[in-house]
Amino acid sequence: MPRLRGKINHKITFDGPLAVNIPCNLRTDIKYLIDLEPIGRRIEVEAGSSLLEAAQQAGVDLVAACGGLGICATCRVRPVRGQFNPLTPAEEEQLEPADIAAGYRLACQAAPLSDARVEIPPDSLPALQKIQLDGREAVVALQPAVRALNLTLEPPTIDDLRSDLTRVSQALQRLAGHVPSSGSLPVGAVPDRMLRDREPPLQGDLAALEQLSDTLRSQGWTARLALDAVEGEAQRLVATLPRGAGLLGLAVDLGSTKLAVYLVNLETGVTLAQAGVMNPQISYGEDVVNRIAFANRSEANRGLLQERVVEALNGAAAELCARAHVLTGQIVEAVVVGNTAMHHFFTHLPVAQLGAAPYVAAVSEALRVRAAELGLKFAPGAQVYLPDNIAGYVGGDHTAALLATRSFPGRVRVLVDIGTNTEISLVVGDSSYTCSTASGPAFEGAHIHDGMRAAPGAIERVRLENGRARWATIGGLAPVGLCGSGILQAVAELRAAEVIDARGALRKDAPGVRFVDGRAEYLLVPAAQTGHGRDVVITRRDINEIQLAKGAIRAGIELMLQHGLLAAGDVEEWVIAGAFGTYLDLPSAMRVGMFPSAPLERFHQVGNAAGMGAKQMLLSLDERREASRLVQRAHYVELTVEPGFTDEFMKGIYL
Amino acid sequence: MPRLRGKINHKITFDGPLAVNIPCNLRTDIKYLIDLEPIGRRIEVEAGSSLLEAAQQAGVDLVAACGGLGICATCRVRPVRGQFNPLTPAEEEQLEPADIAAGYRLACQAAPLSDARVEIPPDSLPALQKIQLDGREAVVALQPAVRALNLTLEPPTIDDLRSDLTRVSQALQRLAGHVPSSGSLPVGAVPDRMLRDREPPLQGDLAALEQLSDTLRSQGWTARLALDAVEGEAQRLVATLPRGAGLLGLAVDLGSTKLAVYLVNLETGVTLAQAGVMNPQISYGEDVVNRIAFANRSEANRGLLQERVVEALNGAAAELCARAHVLTGQIVEAVVVGNTAMHHFFTHLPVAQLGAAPYVAAVSEALRVRAAELGLKFAPGAQVYLPDNIAGYVGGDHTAALLATRSFPGRVRVLVDIGTNTEISLVVGDSSYTCSTASGPAFEGAHIHDGMRAAPGAIERVRLENGRARWATIGGLAPVGLCGSGILQAVAELRAAEVIDARGALRKDAPGVRFVDGRAEYLLVPAAQTGHGRDVVITRRDINEIQLAKGAIRAGIELMLQHGLLAAGDVEEWVIAGAFGTYLDLPSAMRVGMFPSAPLERFHQVGNAAGMGAKQMLLSLDERREASRLVQRAHYVELTVEPGFTDEFMKGIYL
Repeated sequence: MPRLRGKINHKITFDGPLAVNIPCNLRTDIKYLIDLEPIGRRIEVEAGSSLLEAAQQAGVDLVAACGGLGICATCRVRPVRGQFNPLTPAEEEQLEPADIAAGYRLACQAAPLSDARVEIPPDSLPALQKIQLDGREAVVALQPAVRALNLTLEPPTIDDLRSDLTRVSQALQRLAGHVPSSGSLPVGAVPDRMLRDREPPLQGDLAALEQLSDTLRSQGWTARLALDAVEGEAQRLVATLPRGAGLLGLAVDLGSTKLAVYLVNLETGVTLAQAGVMNPQISYGEDVVNRIAFANRSEANRGLLQERVVEALNGAAAELCARAHVLTGQIVEAVVVGNTAMHHFFTHLPVAQLGAAPYVAAVSEALRVRAAELGLKFAPGAQVYLPDNIAGYVGGDHTAALLATRSFPGRVRVLVDIGTNTEISLVVGDSSYTCSTASGPAFEGAHIHDGMRAAPGAIERVRLENGRARWATIGGLAPVGLCGSGILQAVAELRAAEVIDARGALRKDAPGVRFVDGRAEYLLVPAAQTGHGRDVVITRRDINEIQLAKGAIRAGIELMLQHGLLAAGDVEEWVIAGAFGTYLDLPSAMRVGMFPSAPLERFHQVGNAAGMGAKQMLLSLDERREASRLVQRAHYVELTVEPGFTDEFMKGIYL
Repeated sequence: MPRLRGKINHKITFDGPLAVNIPCNLRTDIKYLIDLEPIGRRIEVEAGSSLLEAAQQAGVDLVAACGGLGICATCRVRPVRGQFNPLTPAEEEQLEPADIAAGYRLACQAAPLSDARVEIPPDSLPALQKIQLDGREAVVALQPAVRALNLTLEPPTIDDLRSDLTRVSQALQRLAGHVPSSGSLPVGAVPDRMLRDREPPLQGDLAALEQLSDTLRSQGWTARLALDAVEGEAQRLVATLPRGAGLLGLAVDLGSTKLAVYLVNLETGVTLAQAGVMNPQISYGEDVVNRIAFANRSEANRGLLQERVVEALNGAAAELCARAHVLTGQIVEAVVVGNTAMHHFFTHLPVAQLGAAPYVAAVSEALRVRAAELGLKFAPGAQVYLPDNIAGYVGGDHTAALLATRSFPGRVRVLVDIGTNTEISLVVGDSSYTCSTASGPAFEGAHIHDGMRAAPGAIERVRLENGRARWATIGGLAPVGLCGSGILQAVAELRAAEVIDARGALRKDAPGVRFVDGRAEYLLVPAAQTGHGRDVVITRRDINEIQLAKGAIRAGIELMLQHGLLAAGDVEEWVIAGAFGTYLDLPSAMRVGMFPSAPLERFHQVGNAAGMGAKQMLLSLDERREASRLVQRAHYVELTVEPGFTDEFMKGIYL
């Protein structure tokens, strides 16, 4: 299993506008002075304002997960002086008896009737949610697509024959304050027809409705409802959980080689567990081009690609949940990012048109689809969000990487996500020029004579000292081959030592160079020192592969700069993402010309930026909107029809 | 296969409000006089009004299937005098060149710039859509949930890399007038990002999006899109069809014994084919109580009940489509009605709570669910609408029957839908008292010594003349048993001839009465005259079954009248629905006391009212809303806890 290095730190914040729910007829021209303690802030509010409104006017963000509907009990405060409206039914429902006895109120329900002083307990003040990426933190306000609500209902009786869904719907409406808050109407006593003239406030897939009825009965008419909170959509039931069960989400980076999977608590932002698993589609094609060809051979093949990746995700989700002592049924939402081909394989969209010019996506728009339709075994109403694809060869993974790296302070930024296809964005402010360049699999160790993936025994660092090669392997084992960062550094060192020339040819008379079957190769590690008893060598052909790969990347960078009318020196931040990008030796990469020369401190090797972006979109709907906005402002450049590309590529392959 | 008698006639109408699409800045205080020909109506309209608006103001309903979006070409008119705005891009797209040459316009796009005269061709004037039920016609305005739109697109090129979905979405936006109608912008030339800041106007299940990409390519970038037109929901792709393919719908009455299935053209309202097929769930329990018990034994059992009925529906749909020379993929919407247990079996909702007091439904609200989630093989994005259930034992089939029979003119109406459970509604205006009564299966020939279903050879009419029994069978075959209408009439005749007394006992000395093993029975047809060579008899027990059945119905009727503070004589219409109700002999039913005595002309035997109601809801979203409204105004009465029920039942069993 490949290593997933790097660490993610999380803290939590809440912000954003909050609705309140105080009857309009309470509002007058009278104003009251409210002191907020222990913050020591004073604010003048109109009579009829809620304490939540008062706090907002004072610039104090209270936690108010339900948006001020009185149904989440996260905005508890304690009035210590002044007159207030009596407890509302929502408060009687949501506050613990001990809290009521201690004088607690919900800030969204309590309205002062005089000057007042109010104590805000630490629980009700938000912490900060930060996502760490290369030492920088992106602050993400927790605003997940699914939220939880505890509900206790009266069971049906012969005098109250409402259906389960009606019962739950009306309880939700009542908690949201749509029923006259006389305070005397117990839940369950709302007459059957009383609210029927409204749209039913709750909908759900059949599987979710089935679970609702079963769970309400098995849990004695009490449950934690997971509800879809996406604005503008009908309130949708996602899952009916036991009281106390956390709402979980899965962020997934669907790489063509491996899948990075993060299990996240949506209510705290904490990542509970993470794993990297191989993409089983590799059996059907090493890269996406081969897999598209495989898919095009039959409908069954295309189905197989979809099923295998879904199986792998189900397996990873089950394993992560077991590790975190939670259930897959608690996964109420997922965000999946991947290149456009992976996106289409995963969603079973047609891929034939991705494999032939002009390489167009079936769908570029952000999608939110039912997990069950894909075969994912999460909560019955769980959905999967797939952010916008940018083009046929620039997918939602790059969108996610753009999102995750937008916190870098520089106004001019180049984002390079290195893989078999390398996506490159020149970002200026919020706009970008974006391209994809076919860098090939050399950096993943493929098509290299002694190449291998970054696994134990792979040489990842090479240095030539006085003509003698020194190396370091992953795990410190005896070397068995070279991974991408090793071969790249080897080429840079060989070039510096003039063992190879600018065109990539090995100098016949250089130390270590030998001929096998008339072909030149450099003996890096003799058989006696390797783990498998065979020489580890670098061939002329290996060097060529590296030249082609780095030349493609460099040409892409140069063309983006040309489109932006900028020079390399104008770039304030070079953000290098992806597994290979994280471990490559930057000076070597600059020496071989993969990147223009620039001060090292402008470079940031950020690891799986796509995965981080996926996690941000999992935690916040605003981040999804921001990602779509970034895609709207991304100008895709198709390199294959760019007049300058061939020139730049030819220049780029020189060492 | 049981007979489905009765005929449904269809005509078509369009009505309802229509939106128009004329830029606001054209509106001024200037008014024009418009003459509409050949109707001869004159109307004064504000400058900037479209001809469609003008026609509406004049009370002339033009066909305008797309609601005035300029995308259906159904509102063609021909200006013959006056000045008009130039042709819009929508008209250039939708009108045939010959039409344009002849001066035709779309009424929703053409705005007069002077007084004018306009000819409305017959095509553009709606016919009437009527649903026939017992000679009465319910006029239904065609307003299906799914509408069609023809689209021709420019294929992608290297200069136009928009995804398929973006391409289609933008073409739809353009047709709907959201793009500046300069008239010079060909479809496909809209710049990629131009409209990206809007919500994507088109969504769809993955299966529908997959079909879109495949079909656009196989049909050369032309297609007929089936789009969901339900208000307030996002525009949703249902299917991508060949040009000219009709939009079809399926109306289904899921009876516990048989399924009545109607294949309907949603664009014309015409029923293309219909069939009655046995409900395969019968193998797992004769009535819903037994099937609930079966379902409660295991999850697998419950799944089996769901799968078998879906299989039967898929089979029926395929057969009907073959008969009508259409494809099941053209079925874009279905309406399914059934009693609450059938509804839950079909949707795989829990049924345990339906089988035990207090008998509550998991879901009573109207549902619209994806056909694919249920296992139905229709268009990829097809949905199934299930109207509101009224209570645990009064389902959406009764809702549909209430809907279909609301056209009866009487203000006070009793609707009796006879089956194993008989639903009874006393309807006063739009409100109703509704109950369900356990009438048992006797009227379907079950639990009767020589009972059988209404199949060839069943005695359906019995008359005693001078002490001699005469009979008529279905199909005129030699008798093999008695169906419900036969046994009911036999009891009525035997009682009239005093062969049985008021308590249902056979008089020992009456002609035809004999004793077998000490039990009295009446010999109706001697073995020599039957089809199977055995006597057909009526036993004391048979008579009791009929007494219990009709007593339960009568008691239900009496209790509904008591709730409505009405007497039987106040009822202006007695509507008897269901297969048995259609073929029973009314005078006999009154003589045995199943119904109170009332003038025969007040009785209407309407056949499958539930199926007709389902068809109305298939053709019109307004009908769905109307059905929900009827349910809101239905007051359910639970007979098992009604104090007067036992008394009425005891009275009701006397003959």
